[in-house]
Amino acid sequence: MSEQSGFEKFSDLARPALRKELEQAIAASGDHGTPVLHDMITYQLGWTGDNAGPKAEGKQIRPLLVLIACQAGGGDWNNALPAAAAVELIHNFSLVHDDIEDNGETRRGRPTVWKVWGEAQAINTGDAIFALAYASLVNLVEKNSPEIGLQAGNIFHQTCLRLTQGQHLDIAFEDQDYVELESYWQMVGGKTAALLAFSLEVGSLCAGVSPEIQAHYRDFGHYLGMSFQVQDDILGIWGAEEQIGKSTTGDLVTRKKTLPVLYGLAQEKGFYEGWNDGEITPEKALILSQILEAEGGRAYAQSTADRLIDLALNALKNGKPEGEAGDILRELAKMLLKRQD
Amino acid sequence: MSEQSGFEKFSDLARPALRKELEQAIAASGDHGTPVLHDMITYQLGWTGDNAGPKAEGKQIRPLLVLIACQAGGGDWNNALPAAAAVELIHNFSLVHDDIEDNGETRRGRPTVWKVWGEAQAINTGDAIFALAYASLVNLVEKNSPEIGLQAGNIFHQTCLRLTQGQHLDIAFEDQDYVELESYWQMVGGKTAALLAFSLEVGSLCAGVSPEIQAHYRDFGHYLGMSFQVQDDILGIWGAEEQIGKSTTGDLVTRKKTLPVLYGLAQEKGFYEGWNDGEITPEKALILSQILEAEGGRAYAQSTADRLIDLALNALKNGKPEGEAGDILRELAKMLLKRQD
Repeated sequence: MSEQSGFEKFSDLARPALRKELEQAIAASGDHGTPVLHDMITYQLGWTGDNAGPKAEGKQIRPLLVLIACQAGGGDWNNALPAAAAVELIHNFSLVHDDIEDNGETRRGRPTVWKVWGEAQAINTGDAIFALAYASLVNLVEKNSPEIGLQAGNIFHQTCLRLTQGQHLDIAFEDQDYVELESYWQMVGGKTAALLAFSLEVGSLCAGVSPEIQAHYRDFGHYLGMSFQVQDDILGIWGAEEQIGKSTTGDLVTRKKTLPVLYGLAQEKGFYEGWNDGEITPEKALILSQILEAEGGRAYAQSTADRLIDLALNALKNGKPEGEAGDILRELAKMLLKRQD
Repeated sequence: MSEQSGFEKFSDLARPALRKELEQAIAASGDHGTPVLHDMITYQLGWTGDNAGPKAEGKQIRPLLVLIACQAGGGDWNNALPAAAAVELIHNFSLVHDDIEDNGETRRGRPTVWKVWGEAQAINTGDAIFALAYASLVNLVEKNSPEIGLQAGNIFHQTCLRLTQGQHLDIAFEDQDYVELESYWQMVGGKTAALLAFSLEVGSLCAGVSPEIQAHYRDFGHYLGMSFQVQDDILGIWGAEEQIGKSTTGDLVTRKKTLPVLYGLAQEKGFYEGWNDGEITPEKALILSQILEAEGGRAYAQSTADRLIDLALNALKNGKPEGEAGDILRELAKMLLKRQD
């Protein structure tokens, strides 16, 4: 057996407590003659239904980051559990709705909620999870000051709005011929980075760090999300299948306007012409990926990712994370940010 | 010109302030390169787009009830504006999603949001309005104590969850042959009564009334909602077209499992047989409505509504509403509860 990483050890330690917090957070959903609503939520969380278990639960990176940030800020991760549960619930709310919006039929190896219960019930279940996330966050005041509770609430609202703004742009991009780079960054800032930024910030907030340190944690989460997305964009075109678990060049076939694509379109050369010349089959996608690489799209995206990684690691350094939890954050950042290694 | 009612006078006075509060509450939605998201929200609120104006805005009964309850509880209605805006936003969030879930193509005389911008954007816009509602509620702490802000937050979370539980049951009923009366009341308690109960309760909370008085206000809102729904059920089968603005007997044609229908089905007589005998055309609906009335369905529903009206008026009396605002609440209750007069 290979040695466990610090993150894996912490994950084994914290997951049962997180599970218990989540169970409490969603308990009320079945209270008014609505056991099926509760079932739909536990299905989405990966606890019930066919193939329930760790794979269906997902990696739970975000809630674990909340807890580790709290510990690294000098706090006790147990005090941040309501915020961790809120983050996991908001993440799952957004997945339930995204799957309807994107017409996604499978998620974590299982049929999506709307595939099982229909669209109407799925939209409503996402809404219920949204409400439960807010209810969980309020529980912060039990173990933290009312001020911390109110501040967490404030940044949570902004985060949820940013999530929907990012999603709004992502959906809008599908119908646009071209997307400005600025819009791309707005989209990623909302859809991918906002919840990671919140996770790190609220964890440090529960540790009672200064506003300056809190801002460094937020920035770390933000740049972590931004760089992660750019690397995901690269993997979506050039990644080996086994690394990302979906077919490589897939993002070209679905015409996703990722960073390398936007770079390639702006050149108005071979990639631009191929992109605008009818359907993109998997075979054509392979050729287009080679043209895009030759035109500098891959190098551009990689250097952008590298710059964002530096910004993330620098923000983390400025946050002065303490002890073992600090080591885990650094280890995790390097792991998450270097998926291509 | 006919004399204005106390409610109309208050409405004329308060609406501009409510509008301003709502404008502030939604301003951030266009901040991150998402002016179209802001447009979608102002369209839903009835401010922009074809046929924008008072009719498209809706009656705004719920937010006005928040303000009147605050005044009737001895407070200044201006202090309750953030809660009023939150209620109006949650109501509109639920309308945007309901219209998708029910496949509703028009709302307040205009195409629904999903008809104009598509389902994916509409789901996401509902989510954005949900987040903005929470953000607005937090502004309560500016003019009220942190305790009032936290308490309002707590009952708001429960209310939003109850809304989704009611909607869950309502959708589920469509696929059920029969619905237990208990489930019907759970559904109405969530879908119709919860937000009215919250409106009255949070208004009185902002006035700083005692917990006992606050509970009477909540009960008033709850029974107001319950009785209102039962009367809507009656109007949906026997109402004159001009009174409700939609075709009478319509609820039979769409096989909606309203209270009179559940009563009729439980008798297992003529109505039960007609209901279970193939499609319900408008012509057949008219005959079924007469059978249901003869079998006691209308009288049963009306006596239930009357009982709920008594409970509502009694709760209002126990709440001891003060001054002109108290008069308006009593007047409004009688008006809302006696639509059939």
